Amino acid sequence: MSRYDTVVTNARAMLPGLTDPAAVSIGIRDGRIAAIADEIASSEADQGVDAAGRLVFPGGVDSHFHIGIYRPVEQDAASETESSLVGGATSVISYFRTGSHYLNKTGPYREILPKVLEKTQGRAHTDYGYHIAPMTTAQLDEIDWLVSEAGINSFKYYMFYKGLNLAASSTDAAAYTMSDSYDFGHLFAMMEKIAEADRKYGDRGRISLSLHCESAELIKLFIERVKSLGLPPLETYHRARPPFTERLSIHEAGVLASEAGVRVNLLHLSSADAVKAVGQIRGLYPELDIRVETTLHHLSLTYDMLEGKGLGGKVNPPIRAREDVDALWRAVFDGTIQWIASDHACCLEELKQDDLWPAQPGFGGTALLYPVLLSEGHHKRGLPFDRIVELASSNPAKAYGLYPVKGALAVGADADLTVIDLDRELEVTPTLLHSAQEYTPFQGVKVKGWPALTMLRGTVVYRDGELVAPASGEFLKRPLSRRPQAVRS
Amino acid sequence: MSRYDTVVTNARAMLPGLTDPAAVSIGIRDGRIAAIADEIASSEADQGVDAAGRLVFPGGVDSHFHIGIYRPVEQDAASETESSLVGGATSVISYFRTGSHYLNKTGPYREILPKVLEKTQGRAHTDYGYHIAPMTTAQLDEIDWLVSEAGINSFKYYMFYKGLNLAASSTDAAAYTMSDSYDFGHLFAMMEKIAEADRKYGDRGRISLSLHCESAELIKLFIERVKSLGLPPLETYHRARPPFTERLSIHEAGVLASEAGVRVNLLHLSSADAVKAVGQIRGLYPELDIRVETTLHHLSLTYDMLEGKGLGGKVNPPIRAREDVDALWRAVFDGTIQWIASDHACCLEELKQDDLWPAQPGFGGTALLYPVLLSEGHHKRGLPFDRIVELASSNPAKAYGLYPVKGALAVGADADLTVIDLDRELEVTPTLLHSAQEYTPFQGVKVKGWPALTMLRGTVVYRDGELVAPASGEFLKRPLSRRPQAVRS
Amino acid sequence: MSRYDTVVTNARAMLPGLTDPAAVSIGIRDGRIAAIADEIASSEADQGVDAAGRLVFPGGVDSHFHIGIYRPVEQDAASETESSLVGGATSVISYFRTGSHYLNKTGPYREILPKVLEKTQGRAHTDYGYHIAPMTTAQLDEIDWLVSEAGINSFKYYMFYKGLNLAASSTDAAAYTMSDSYDFGHLFAMMEKIAEADRKYGDRGRISLSLHCESAELIKLFIERVKSLGLPPLETYHRARPPFTERLSIHEAGVLASEAGVRVNLLHLSSADAVKAVGQIRGLYPELDIRVETTLHHLSLTYDMLEGKGLGGKVNPPIRAREDVDALWRAVFDGTIQWIASDHACCLEELKQDDLWPAQPGFGGTALLYPVLLSEGHHKRGLPFDRIVELASSNPAKAYGLYPVKGALAVGADADLTVIDLDRELEVTPTLLHSAQEYTPFQGVKVKGWPALTMLRGTVVYRDGELVAPASGEFLKRPLSRRPQAVRS
Amino acid sequence: MSRYDTVVTNARAMLPGLTDPAAVSIGIRDGRIAAIADEIASSEADQGVDAAGRLVFPGGVDSHFHIGIYRPVEQDAASETESSLVGGATSVISYFRTGSHYLNKTGPYREILPKVLEKTQGRAHTDYGYHIAPMTTAQLDEIDWLVSEAGINSFKYYMFYKGLNLAASSTDAAAYTMSDSYDFGHLFAMMEKIAEADRKYGDRGRISLSLHCESAELIKLFIERVKSLGLPPLETYHRARPPFTERLSIHEAGVLASEAGVRVNLLHLSSADAVKAVGQIRGLYPELDIRVETTLHHLSLTYDMLEGKGLGGKVNPPIRAREDVDALWRAVFDGTIQWIASDHACCLEELKQDDLWPAQPGFGGTALLYPVLLSEGHHKRGLPFDRIVELASSNPAKAYGLYPVKGALAVGADADLTVIDLDRELEVTPTLLHSAQEYTPFQGVKVKGWPALTMLRGTVVYRDGELVAPASGEFLKRPLSRRPQAVRS
Repeated sequence: MSRYDTVVTNARAMLPGLTDPAAVSIGIRDGRIAAIADEIASSEADQGVDAAGRLVFPGGVDSHFHIGIYRPVEQDAASETESSLVGGATSVISYFRTGSHYLNKTGPYREILPKVLEKTQGRAHTDYGYHIAPMTTAQLDEIDWLVSEAGINSFKYYMFYKGLNLAASSTDAAAYTMSDSYDFGHLFAMMEKIAEADRKYGDRGRISLSLHCESAELIKLFIERVKSLGLPPLETYHRARPPFTERLSIHEAGVLASEAGVRVNLLHLSSADAVKAVGQIRGLYPELDIRVETTLHHLSLTYDMLEGKGLGGKVNPPIRAREDVDALWRAVFDGTIQWIASDHACCLEELKQDDLWPAQPGFGGTALLYPVLLSEGHHKRGLPFDRIVELASSNPAKAYGLYPVKGALAVGADADLTVIDLDRELEVTPTLLHSAQEYTPFQGVKVKGWPALTMLRGTVVYRDGELVAPASGEFLKRPLSRRPQAVRS
Repeated sequence: MSRYDTVVTNARAMLPGLTDPAAVSIGIRDGRIAAIADEIASSEADQGVDAAGRLVFPGGVDSHFHIGIYRPVEQDAASETESSLVGGATSVISYFRTGSHYLNKTGPYREILPKVLEKTQGRAHTDYGYHIAPMTTAQLDEIDWLVSEAGINSFKYYMFYKGLNLAASSTDAAAYTMSDSYDFGHLFAMMEKIAEADRKYGDRGRISLSLHCESAELIKLFIERVKSLGLPPLETYHRARPPFTERLSIHEAGVLASEAGVRVNLLHLSSADAVKAVGQIRGLYPELDIRVETTLHHLSLTYDMLEGKGLGGKVNPPIRAREDVDALWRAVFDGTIQWIASDHACCLEELKQDDLWPAQPGFGGTALLYPVLLSEGHHKRGLPFDRIVELASSNPAKAYGLYPVKGALAVGADADLTVIDLDRELEVTPTLLHSAQEYTPFQGVKVKGWPALTMLRGTVVYRDGELVAPASGEFLKRPLSRRPQAVRS
Repeated sequence: MSRYDTVVTNARAMLPGLTDPAAVSIGIRDGRIAAIADEIASSEADQGVDAAGRLVFPGGVDSHFHIGIYRPVEQDAASETESSLVGGATSVISYFRTGSHYLNKTGPYREILPKVLEKTQGRAHTDYGYHIAPMTTAQLDEIDWLVSEAGINSFKYYMFYKGLNLAASSTDAAAYTMSDSYDFGHLFAMMEKIAEADRKYGDRGRISLSLHCESAELIKLFIERVKSLGLPPLETYHRARPPFTERLSIHEAGVLASEAGVRVNLLHLSSADAVKAVGQIRGLYPELDIRVETTLHHLSLTYDMLEGKGLGGKVNPPIRAREDVDALWRAVFDGTIQWIASDHACCLEELKQDDLWPAQPGFGGTALLYPVLLSEGHHKRGLPFDRIVELASSNPAKAYGLYPVKGALAVGADADLTVIDLDRELEVTPTLLHSAQEYTPFQGVKVKGWPALTMLRGTVVYRDGELVAPASGEFLKRPLSRRPQAVRS
Repeated sequence: MSRYDTVVTNARAMLPGLTDPAAVSIGIRDGRIAAIADEIASSEADQGVDAAGRLVFPGGVDSHFHIGIYRPVEQDAASETESSLVGGATSVISYFRTGSHYLNKTGPYREILPKVLEKTQGRAHTDYGYHIAPMTTAQLDEIDWLVSEAGINSFKYYMFYKGLNLAASSTDAAAYTMSDSYDFGHLFAMMEKIAEADRKYGDRGRISLSLHCESAELIKLFIERVKSLGLPPLETYHRARPPFTERLSIHEAGVLASEAGVRVNLLHLSSADAVKAVGQIRGLYPELDIRVETTLHHLSLTYDMLEGKGLGGKVNPPIRAREDVDALWRAVFDGTIQWIASDHACCLEELKQDDLWPAQPGFGGTALLYPVLLSEGHHKRGLPFDRIVELASSNPAKAYGLYPVKGALAVGADADLTVIDLDRELEVTPTLLHSAQEYTPFQGVKVKGWPALTMLRGTVVYRDGELVAPASGEFLKRPLSRRPQAVRS
């Protein structure tokens, strides 16, 4: 019997706590990292992976994902997590909620969550967890169970559902959410429940609430105004949901969260206004644990770039202007933003079509997690590798109770990693992304820096553009209790 | 013909810009101050008023008032402005809106406002103006007319009407407001209209929006919770509308007003939380013109003091705890708060009765404007006289386009004044207040410092506890264009 | 006997607390204002002054002045206060200290101050007071006496004397100051003494410390550097004492004053950096009473404007660049700066000559107090009249214990006033300024808005460019105890 | 030949980037860490060290040290670095300067530094580097050479030397510093030189200036005052150098550093005032790189604890009061403070004796680096292990150009580590500390948590209270260029 199942040799690995890549070999046994050493001979392992002096990153943690939002959970779980491997992600955390879309029904999560897990089980190519959005008053009482037994430690509230559906094509929000009372009263009660769970179970890991920060009442006003402006559709959509609605929501979130004492994650911030507001509420509530996410597309795309390319790029919050992209990058560099996610939602062309208002929002992007950070971040702007790993892997892993089993190349951690071809440049096409979505708003964008190989718990699952292993993703029952020190019995 | 119609001799008058009372005589002609001199002989005037060395203040400007909210406008206009004279106020600015209460109807202000003025005309004992609350989308288009022609330069939005009626006994807010869309979209559109009017007509005086800062969605949540606590009714009501709902609303107001660039007045702040939030938004938006009001009752009463005394003290926002009263006084001293008003609403006992939730909120207090500031402010806490005059008279006059015709003892200004018996101490009774309201939450409170005589435009209208002149109040078409220098034709 | 000694008719007077000029007549008796009325007939007074509809301001209070710094006190007292009348000032407060310049000696103020007063007595054309700079440890013990008996309630510390003489031509500061220990230890001990006096006697009026904010240790470094740059002399001087030395000193002042609890006045701030630093220390120490002065020349001149015009413009702190002038004006408008002074020092040509380093700093400017504010402030930038009066008269009067006897047109106040020719435009020449100084750095500057007549305690002392009365200035024993209400025996 | 020279088995090692100890073995070859693995058999190495399940920390980096300040460099280099091993430190960075003490001479560092290195060479038991204090104008021009060739990337300025010697027994500072100009001009010029070097060479690692923050001019004032108070000597000393002198110096440092754009380290902060000031200047200058140090003694001792125990505890800044200790611990927890050092200075009893003022300041403490953090930090206050490692090892290593060769247990890093007996409790005695100093202010303090074994570059140098290897410390030529990835040829 070999000492290791697999050894990755000649790696320039990004190890936790270090700024520069380390020239090491990585020994893997039973799906976990068993050794990191200056040299491990291939002969010590059943299988060798030669990194050939390339960068090795911990597997990405794509923490904003939507399995099953527009298609059956079973289908998305398979095709869309395959797409994640392309971008170097080996874990995804998907949002799930009752109401319209997803399973199109409401009811207790005690009944519905097991069904969702059952549908995902055996189909995903990455490990996967779920964030849960309590939509009804009754579901608030399930938070304790979700945390203590179901492996869920992060929740969500959609601030703009107070008066709009997802596409902003209807103001019958209640029909959309299938909720009795989905307003700030509901939000505050939810915050209190989550804060209570954090006090009760927080020694096992952070328990938090994620917020979609946009304001329905303002959006309704602006929708009416922009309709007559005759602007291109994605600029129209941007103006219908202007950045200051994010600013308003962020300030509201600050007041409510500071009162409830709940940890919050501000999702997919899209604008200079939002970045500024984050700085303001951190100043106002220094004791609050506020973490901030932006997305790959808000860091890469502008509505100008997408003009004339249809409605694929409709998303909430909208694709913004150049100055917003620049402000987000500054926030990535100065530490305002903690992590990057794809907000991946496989939204087929038939749901987009040609009419702005009924078109469903969202699209896929998980295949670009590391590539966008390398291309737009490292190559164009000098973003250091250790910061890239934090943004795409260790920071979301820490925020959501996965670290250091996920998010770190460390002895005892899961052997999730990706080998990077730093100088490989490709023009994005749908095919490249391995998603079921037939188009991509990133179409034609040149991206430099791609995973050549992705490994999940010691198994090479993606190599050279091909899926090379069957679906072996497992449910991430959070907090992951295996700690890296607990190796081998 | 005498040189003056009236002369007030032996006055210790609070003149603008001076800290200490000045020993002067005041000569009055044609309702205005014609001279301020070290000595004017009684013989120079048809009539002499000997102030006998007592303080003389400019007539108070009670800028938060509700003529006709629960009773016919005609009745309130007469009885309740008489009450104002008792407290030394010679001007009131009443809120008026369409919807439930007041005239119980909706429609254009071009039609309704003249009717209101007609009903008030000839009945009021003080001069009077109106703040207007645009309730419907259509009324937003009347703002330009209201400002440019109708003499209205201050408006109002009720932040808690988004989901509650006034008594918080119904969540059918739309039925209550008779509005099509009374949400933040409406508010923001209103802010833009008012900001536009301010840019267009602001050289004639400040044009502003007043905000009732409480949050309906939270209140609905807390109402359900407090019902089962078994606490005394006014403490229950306090907990049903906790201070942090003010804090939330103030932060929302800050974001929205900063975006629209509108001048705002934060009305009747009631709590330590609210005071803190004001400091925060002033820090966040230093360029914004934010002025702050509190009320006589929030500076004087606690729910503990009112326990066992019925529902007379139900008011929005509620009567709070001792620490809130203390925080408000600190804010009065440190300049956070610009003015004090009564929020006078004559609410007869039959509208209160014994059940907390249906009981109507509000009560009268205008008769205590100077008395509370003298008793609680000067005697108990050392508040200087010049600050009292600012809080009760010159600051609201400046904010609402009346200064210096009102709010200043200056040559050319209206001869509105009140002579103060600084050491007179009385226990408050309804009779003392000259209001139609049969009770008062201030019942039994000892108050030291009362107007002995009140003069409106040169006429003694109140003296030694008695009304001594017929109603001669006139409509304050704002901004008042007579300036003190423009005397005599 | 007439009712008044003098009446000023047809005035558009700036009365305290009012924004706009008031059309009034002013009756004067026994040197004080006895009446302000819409109309006083000339026949009621022995003497009439027809203001002819022109603006009437309270006499200026030029609170930064140097009588006798370079010439005998007797001479400066006469010639330089005459110059003040030209600019509408009727009171000056001069700095005095022991050490080099002034009387060129040291010793106790109990002995020296009476001599200074004796030298000034009967010679000055304005009323005058003295700020005193305790230079030695022994003099610190005289602060109580100075405040309680000698009529001094403001003191001074020169932060750059720690290592430089006035001209920055010697680093033998001790020889210059004739002090045993003129460092931050001395400063802090002084602050404690002044704070103690303020607690003990402050009910009679504000007791404060004025600070010259520049840092000798840095200046010495920069002097060596700039010598070789070959720049024009006044730009050289600016670079030798760069704005950040003001910034450093202001922050040091903030720390020390906050620890001692002393009221401070930051003198003649000259730069954008200084303005910013003031905002910072006000934010850091909100409880501190910090008032800020700038000068006429820092608001009017740049070193570029003075290039090729000799060393007349050498002054501490130096004349700066355009962006500094602009920043100071913004600070005047936004309220950062409380008052304007001339820092008048009659420095004859023989003390300037052609060599930058030995040339003495300072020059005269008091004749431009109201003119510069009217010309640069009102005409060019729209500065309102009431703000001009605050800056040149009422604010320094309030800061230094003169208000409202000085600084206000109010019944009971001294009848110090100036009648303004708002549209008179003149090019500045030395002759125009009525000073003994043979040149002026303002030479050739066009100034619009000049006093036509200046009155001191009821006597017309300056009219139409001529001195028209003998010297009648009196010592301002502060705080002035006459209050405007205390009229007539 | 074995695979490893040494293997540490059964370690619970604090690895970089991980919160919890990892159960690993550590393989060492050629003085560096060659492997970290779940299991390495003892048979794979020439030598085994069984950590027996105990914590293993990276060797401490005691970054504030004084080799040779009071004794010959040769002697201190030997005895005092031996003391460091007791506390788990394997690197020290000593301050060195010309002037009194140390070598008691001045001159160019090009000549003097080689002599210092020669004297240290072969004698130290830890690796060692030097911070250099440029004392003369001429030495400022050596900064470029020191950085680019001599391996020095951190400098020092003593803010209180402006007017005092080290013991505060003389004000002839120039004689003490042997400097031409040791004032803020010198400091600012130094800052500019260091900032320039940072721009030029900073890609190789951080180049910074360390500041001793106390103000001589104030101290001189307070010394005179406290002499007559009759207080115990160490409380007297505390009052002679009150916390607000730190506050003043910190604000001065902020202004100067922000102008020069230099990275600064604020050394041995001792008080609540200092902590507050740090927060203030970070707020004022957010772009500045400001790092903060405190010492073991300021975290452990109060002047009350040392009363009656002689002058051993005299140190600059002084031992403070309980509330200061508490504030420093809060600052350790909230991240205000980046690292902890000993400020070790071996000061024999003969230099202390019985008279407060001539007694030399300082004492040894390096032997307590990890013990105090474990005892006072972990056991008493719950300070996490990863934070302890940051404070004592990785943060100073990062700040001073040593990381990750020092400060991290990582493959490729130097095999500097210490095995911790977490529950071993000992009462401090001089003997225990292995220093030449005959006493210790920590005498009698119970400390829980001690290194059982310390290893320097793979060699066990200290075990069970005994030095077990000859001196093998090497000069740390900074920045250390070996990176952990660059292992083995």
